[in-house]
Amino acid sequence: MSNVKEKPSILETEWLYHSRFFHLEKMDLKFSNGQERSYERINPGFDRAVMVVPMLDAETVLLVREYGAGVSDYYLSLPKGAMDVGEDAITAANRELKEEVGYGSRQLTVLKQLALSPSYMGNRINIVLAEQLYEEKLVGDEPEPLELVPYPLKELGQLILNADFYEAYAVAALYMVRDRLGLGQ
Amino acid sequence: MSNVKEKPSILETEWLYHSRFFHLEKMDLKFSNGQERSYERINPGFDRAVMVVPMLDAETVLLVREYGAGVSDYYLSLPKGAMDVGEDAITAANRELKEEVGYGSRQLTVLKQLALSPSYMGNRINIVLAEQLYEEKLVGDEPEPLELVPYPLKELGQLILNADFYEAYAVAALYMVRDRLGLGQ
Repeated sequence: MSNVKEKPSILETEWLYHSRFFHLEKMDLKFSNGQERSYERINPGFDRAVMVVPMLDAETVLLVREYGAGVSDYYLSLPKGAMDVGEDAITAANRELKEEVGYGSRQLTVLKQLALSPSYMGNRINIVLAEQLYEEKLVGDEPEPLELVPYPLKELGQLILNADFYEAYAVAALYMVRDRLGLGQ
Repeated sequence: MSNVKEKPSILETEWLYHSRFFHLEKMDLKFSNGQERSYERINPGFDRAVMVVPMLDAETVLLVREYGAGVSDYYLSLPKGAMDVGEDAITAANRELKEEVGYGSRQLTVLKQLALSPSYMGNRINIVLAEQLYEEKLVGDEPEPLELVPYPLKELGQLILNADFYEAYAVAALYMVRDRLGLGQ
């Protein structure tokens, strides 16, 4: 699966807007065949985030239900958040776990870095499997406690049918962990 | 998995910026416990997009390698795009398939609508399984032809290890299809 194609050359870039959380850039590109296109993208290079898959035991994952401002509704997902300055993915995952669900983990494994929409976003997130949990609570910045929803990972096929469970990162993360733990079809 | 929690009330919203592709909004929310927070989100309500999982035969998915402006690199993914005005997900999926990989499909199935990051994005995409393909090419707006990469879906575990394959939507979509077609572990 080698990539022999030359990357497009960047003719011009321009920052369109910066807000507290978003950085919006315009890029004019020239592809190797001479075609030119103008693109917009947000948050180039932002890869300092973690999503945690906490296993309460060998078969049970701990989901959370929280409010999503993007969709104006509560939805099922996994603990997640931005990495603090100086933190690596493992440290950030353990901190988010303690803040959001009240557990620490003695065995944390980075499974993969996923991107949201590479065509127009720079955002990436580290998927971290958390095993061997123990109770420990840190105070985070959540506006309200997250609802905790233990779920048997063997029944992921049922969870996918749930109208509350639709975050692409979380869907991908649970399939990866289910396969890794041998809880698949 | 009922949700008994009352949604936060919206104290104030303000559009911060509109570009060609992005709409950026600020929201001030008050949660049911009285806590107030200010959030930013992009593209609220934008759910008119499709990602297509084209099956060349019972076991082979057709991946594409294309340039992603968000990550400034080529990456492995699936055919995808925005729905045109008046199109439903099935029609849009078949059009994108013809434009991007030169196939039409006689059997299209919407599997699920996935969201990117519900905490700060409104974007959602319809995952559409395309079977019973036939050759038909439509001219799209791609700057260059996409590289086509047939791949045995049974070996998804290997694909996940590939450093070029990291788009959360595509990872989630391939697991869903692999399970549905009984090509799992």
